[in-house]
Amino acid sequence: MYDHKYLLEFTTNVFMGVGCSRDDAAAVAAVLVAAELRDHSSHGMIRVREYYELWKSGRVNVTPDVRVVHETPSTAVIDGDRCFGMVAGVRSMRLAIEKAAATGTGWVATRNSNHFGIAGYYAMMALEHDMAGITVTNANPLVVPTFSVSRYLGTNPLAVAVPAMEEPPFVADFATTPIARGKLAVSEKKGEKVPLGYVQDAEGNPSDDPGILRRGGGMVTLGGDRVHGSHKGYCMTAVIDIFSALFSGANFGPFVPPSVAYLPVPENQPGKGTGHFFGAMRIDAFRPANEFREAMDQWIRTFRNAKPAKGEVRVMIPGDPEREAEERNLRSGISIVPAVVEDLKAIAGELGLSF
Amino acid sequence: MYDHKYLLEFTTNVFMGVGCSRDDAAAVAAVLVAAELRDHSSHGMIRVREYYELWKSGRVNVTPDVRVVHETPSTAVIDGDRCFGMVAGVRSMRLAIEKAAATGTGWVATRNSNHFGIAGYYAMMALEHDMAGITVTNANPLVVPTFSVSRYLGTNPLAVAVPAMEEPPFVADFATTPIARGKLAVSEKKGEKVPLGYVQDAEGNPSDDPGILRRGGGMVTLGGDRVHGSHKGYCMTAVIDIFSALFSGANFGPFVPPSVAYLPVPENQPGKGTGHFFGAMRIDAFRPANEFREAMDQWIRTFRNAKPAKGEVRVMIPGDPEREAEERNLRSGISIVPAVVEDLKAIAGELGLSF
Repeated sequence: MYDHKYLLEFTTNVFMGVGCSRDDAAAVAAVLVAAELRDHSSHGMIRVREYYELWKSGRVNVTPDVRVVHETPSTAVIDGDRCFGMVAGVRSMRLAIEKAAATGTGWVATRNSNHFGIAGYYAMMALEHDMAGITVTNANPLVVPTFSVSRYLGTNPLAVAVPAMEEPPFVADFATTPIARGKLAVSEKKGEKVPLGYVQDAEGNPSDDPGILRRGGGMVTLGGDRVHGSHKGYCMTAVIDIFSALFSGANFGPFVPPSVAYLPVPENQPGKGTGHFFGAMRIDAFRPANEFREAMDQWIRTFRNAKPAKGEVRVMIPGDPEREAEERNLRSGISIVPAVVEDLKAIAGELGLSF
Repeated sequence: MYDHKYLLEFTTNVFMGVGCSRDDAAAVAAVLVAAELRDHSSHGMIRVREYYELWKSGRVNVTPDVRVVHETPSTAVIDGDRCFGMVAGVRSMRLAIEKAAATGTGWVATRNSNHFGIAGYYAMMALEHDMAGITVTNANPLVVPTFSVSRYLGTNPLAVAVPAMEEPPFVADFATTPIARGKLAVSEKKGEKVPLGYVQDAEGNPSDDPGILRRGGGMVTLGGDRVHGSHKGYCMTAVIDIFSALFSGANFGPFVPPSVAYLPVPENQPGKGTGHFFGAMRIDAFRPANEFREAMDQWIRTFRNAKPAKGEVRVMIPGDPEREAEERNLRSGISIVPAVVEDLKAIAGELGLSF
């Protein structure tokens, strides 16, 4: 088990080791370790090597000029200059919060960025400012539109954080596909089939083969198939792609650059890098802040006290599982799988650090 | 077959007949007829009788003082004074558009309203102003959170409209459940079962009985079950409930008043009426408008040219089916089922009109 502070320090040193400023390296480390604490280890320390390889391949600029290229009182576009996604992410969300403080809401579209970790990290930055936060991003194309076999969409996540009074905040943070890609890899390694409704084969037939993505298959959108509303999941994923790429001038859908160095960047890209979109809304731009917070307490308590289905123990509020994981992992430390530990040791060796 | 202009005029006369101003009656009629044109007849003329009965029961104010109760440069809260939802909806979206013109984006939360028809109507109002539009609303509680049997959520729709250049606009407009409630009623009348993944019974077991809602059952969220991501659908539906009710001070989840007169209003309501949320975003608050529109053309053409799955003919863009229906229905007229025609004739008789 690793203490989160140790992981923060180590990860900061890794990214300073490749040339990032202390602030930028600390931002990357903070988001990766937050993912570990919240039990989203698919977005945690496993990414250190991926980011390191991406830097080695020349696809990340560790001394970027992250800048505002356009703005109005409530909006801005930020160009990340090929930075690590966290650097652009934190900068963009801060600007959204500043604009919200001035005009009620702030909305920042970000281009020329890279993988930014868990979307929820940025949405939650709004909470301490008495604001609700919203974050979306597009991602590597692995997902098919309804009726198609073309992998034109990412697992594009949406995160929304809303503050309450005595209750912990509402934090929804989810990919807009039935499952995360990481789950497919785990099932494949175990030699297991997956339930129908996660992936399809190269012709578009339902498949239970977790390795089908390497044979022309694709992930399906939330809903699974047309009968169960996959076209609604397609709409959601498409909306997130448009917000992330079209408002910012980043690459959309099939042109989003892979977040791993071993996959090539698509040719003839219409935009710049990966795109994100950030929003901050002052709650007192709508109602007195305390009134809003008390109403959120009532919402949360009402739903937490909903009657469980037979065999279920409780009804959860979005954010409950992650918050409980964080409390546990802060106390007892973070476990990291051996293969990732080996990667971290190897990188440490290359950079003259130790892990 | 009925000409849409005839339906517009008739419906306007009905709502003037119950006491609405010409403008307000025309707003109700415009949204209902737009639903018919777009083949969303579940939100079309069938609602005339429901709205009429709701007015008779005293739950709608036909001479409302719809007013802004709070605002900042980019936000406002509107109180609908128990108006027909379209009256508050059109007023709210207009204000969002005004605010976007001034500060880049405009966001209006609306309370004390009623059923407002198709969400897409309002989102699309932004298009002619070179803006993207967003609309959500909460609705009668019929939907269960994941792991629960409590019907605490509506089929809460999300609509997003984004302008293009030569291509028609992208218009997503969908309820955040696998199917609309109307489909259950149709299957029940036909004596058919429904696929698993639409509804559950009073204990939370999967059910294929379309009448199960009358026996304590509930509709499930998009995703269907936990294995297929119903918790993500729950997150979405919950986010829409919070945006519609918490930002405005309307009723949330289980307290949302039914849109039909034969179901009672819940006791001890924490808020006012039904809630909606509207957003307008100037596209040139992010990029030069023509650049944005051309990029949207490219997005739309890319996805329209995605490879169809085996047995499928084409890949659609959100908004394609409704636009094609509208072109067809404008040309050849709107067909209305006999039971609805009878309702309209009866109402016409009561109001001294003819249908």
